[in-house]
Amino acid sequence: MAEENNDKMQEVPTNRVEAFSDGVFAIAITLLILQIKLPAGKIFGDTSLRSHLLKLWPEYFTYCFSFLTIGIYWANHHYIFKFYARTDHTFLVLNLFFLMSVSFLPFPTAVLGEYITDLSHKETAVTFYALGIYLPAFFWCMIWLYASYKGRLIDNKLDKNFVRYLTWLYLISNALYLSSIIISLFSPIASVVITVVLTLLFMLPPKNPRYQDA
Amino acid sequence: MAEENNDKMQEVPTNRVEAFSDGVFAIAITLLILQIKLPAGKIFGDTSLRSHLLKLWPEYFTYCFSFLTIGIYWANHHYIFKFYARTDHTFLVLNLFFLMSVSFLPFPTAVLGEYITDLSHKETAVTFYALGIYLPAFFWCMIWLYASYKGRLIDNKLDKNFVRYLTWLYLISNALYLSSIIISLFSPIASVVITVVLTLLFMLPPKNPRYQDA
Amino acid sequence: MAEENNDKMQEVPTNRVEAFSDGVFAIAITLLILQIKLPAGKIFGDTSLRSHLLKLWPEYFTYCFSFLTIGIYWANHHYIFKFYARTDHTFLVLNLFFLMSVSFLPFPTAVLGEYITDLSHKETAVTFYALGIYLPAFFWCMIWLYASYKGRLIDNKLDKNFVRYLTWLYLISNALYLSSIIISLFSPIASVVITVVLTLLFMLPPKNPRYQDA
Amino acid sequence: MAEENNDKMQEVPTNRVEAFSDGVFAIAITLLILQIKLPAGKIFGDTSLRSHLLKLWPEYFTYCFSFLTIGIYWANHHYIFKFYARTDHTFLVLNLFFLMSVSFLPFPTAVLGEYITDLSHKETAVTFYALGIYLPAFFWCMIWLYASYKGRLIDNKLDKNFVRYLTWLYLISNALYLSSIIISLFSPIASVVITVVLTLLFMLPPKNPRYQDA
Repeated sequence: MAEENNDKMQEVPTNRVEAFSDGVFAIAITLLILQIKLPAGKIFGDTSLRSHLLKLWPEYFTYCFSFLTIGIYWANHHYIFKFYARTDHTFLVLNLFFLMSVSFLPFPTAVLGEYITDLSHKETAVTFYALGIYLPAFFWCMIWLYASYKGRLIDNKLDKNFVRYLTWLYLISNALYLSSIIISLFSPIASVVITVVLTLLFMLPPKNPRYQDA
Repeated sequence: MAEENNDKMQEVPTNRVEAFSDGVFAIAITLLILQIKLPAGKIFGDTSLRSHLLKLWPEYFTYCFSFLTIGIYWANHHYIFKFYARTDHTFLVLNLFFLMSVSFLPFPTAVLGEYITDLSHKETAVTFYALGIYLPAFFWCMIWLYASYKGRLIDNKLDKNFVRYLTWLYLISNALYLSSIIISLFSPIASVVITVVLTLLFMLPPKNPRYQDA
Repeated sequence: MAEENNDKMQEVPTNRVEAFSDGVFAIAITLLILQIKLPAGKIFGDTSLRSHLLKLWPEYFTYCFSFLTIGIYWANHHYIFKFYARTDHTFLVLNLFFLMSVSFLPFPTAVLGEYITDLSHKETAVTFYALGIYLPAFFWCMIWLYASYKGRLIDNKLDKNFVRYLTWLYLISNALYLSSIIISLFSPIASVVITVVLTLLFMLPPKNPRYQDA
Repeated sequence: MAEENNDKMQEVPTNRVEAFSDGVFAIAITLLILQIKLPAGKIFGDTSLRSHLLKLWPEYFTYCFSFLTIGIYWANHHYIFKFYARTDHTFLVLNLFFLMSVSFLPFPTAVLGEYITDLSHKETAVTFYALGIYLPAFFWCMIWLYASYKGRLIDNKLDKNFVRYLTWLYLISNALYLSSIIISLFSPIASVVITVVLTLLFMLPPKNPRYQDA
């Protein structure tokens, strides 16, 4: 019975974790809009509202980009949770750290939106944003490595080669996100390009899972 | 088995997409209130709090109107999701763009609320709001066109004429929302009237779906 | 089949309305905290942080009170949705207006918290808050009257006397909330007391529903 | 039939309470990021954006810590709700007070983040935060004591010793959180250390429940 309790009682079932994560995704994605602000106080004189709204283009861009990033994480979270057969305490804590880094995204997004057109601070803003984009990728990879190590928490009917494929996919994209932080120290533009391209790659349909022959 | 995986595994089921979209609707609709603000700092002297609260009428109006707009999208989202039998990756990405434009609404709402009574900036504020209202309608229509094209993702028991009816309904209302952007450049008031009337039309009960004779 | 479609397809089922409403309740209740703010900028000199935090007592009070109010609406929403057997379009629109008035609450809460201790603006702040508390009660009552009129949407096994009891309960509490707006024009304190007592009454367990003898 | 109604109709079922609580947890945890702010207005001159971002370290720390705290409450809320077999009105009201104290956390978090490095206000900020951390623990304990008293609302198959174990666990951790408020008056650092250690202890996997022999 202790064994059964272990399974039935101790840990939160995967669908509960998905539901809570969905909530955090939905809120973090919607909070992004609060970072776009008009200058405080009314606009007077000859500066027009139109030019103010147009000058906010970096904020629109970062809004869209962070929105897509979180949306892709949401879709991938559902994709990968089909492979997790059970949870344990460490898994829950790692998922919490992942959600923490997703919820953090609105802040670097605001920083990038405000300073990407600022010559003297552009570099720092891009590095900070690259870091903000890297953190969820890092914890995502940690969750996968922990859960897939010796098949700890994943569906044991999954094909070994498919598991290996995902491991390499996440490790390599991690390395690329990490490299874009380093590149941002030398060329902010190159770093932005790498990050955008990587994210667009993740917008492609994920690979169909393969199962062992029954 | 690959075929079956395709159906069963690769894409997020429609009810998950609905649940996530519901979350975004609920949050975007509730965040609207954060755009109504008292002037920073205490009010002193002879300007009364009452006149301050009364002067906020444009913000109350835009709050109510954007709230109804998002609420109507929510109801219609459930209405139309009954016709989508399955999802695919492009569908998910289009839905994400739709949600992005819904989440964006609090910002043009705040701009309109603050500048609708401002003689020199009124026109820009209305144009920007008309654009903000148009974007969700645009992506809504894109989703429908993509999903209904040759019956790609929709319930294939739906009556062909009913599908055609919805296609025209969305194309025409798109054209009208688009025209209200152009009209706003000449007459802000006329643009606001068109947008309000269009939205009120969508508050009418949607047409009953028709199915092919069994 | 048309008839069946009417039931099955046209309207959002009650549990979807409940889920969306729950989302709005949960967000509106949690956004209340954003209205409590420290003075912008660091505190210097001899004014201590402690006295600042203590001086915020009206904001803590209004936070707690509005939180309880929304929480009670949440519990009562579930209580009453057991009596609604189906929805129709008017019902959905009325529920949307109800949610709009619930989501509006953080704003009068912030106004009351900031001006309740301000001698010259206290009266206006209390009237505005009493109005903010009245609005959800008004739409709540409208939903009930619409749904219960000639048993339009309610469970037809409900005992007639029990239905009549709820009708009177909501009409009377509406009248009392309305009267507290009028009283606030003469005595802010009396108005606050009436509102608090009314809300505390709604914290009492709701009456057990009665059904017709089978 | 009255008896049956009592069970079936009067109170919100435990899974509805869990879902609503989950919503509040997810929103409160995600709102924490809004407390991290850049100084208003652009940065000019020789102060770099980098030094600004680095100086925000206390805000990052408090963000992470409050995020973990709410996340742990979320996990434990699911853990303990498996032992609650039913709800009653008092239980719902106590759970509402618990959620109120969880939703309040972003405010003391912001205060601590802003003043922990401020020599003259550090002590007050830590005391206020310790109070903010204590409140959810207090209501948590109240819920448990109310629900477990003479087995009022808990699963009656739970082992008596296990129930006693949880009672002591919550009473003792309550006493420790309370003591960290008092200690903060003398040594802010010691108080922070106690709070962090206590929270880390709750990150350990909770004890497996024990049931009476069947």
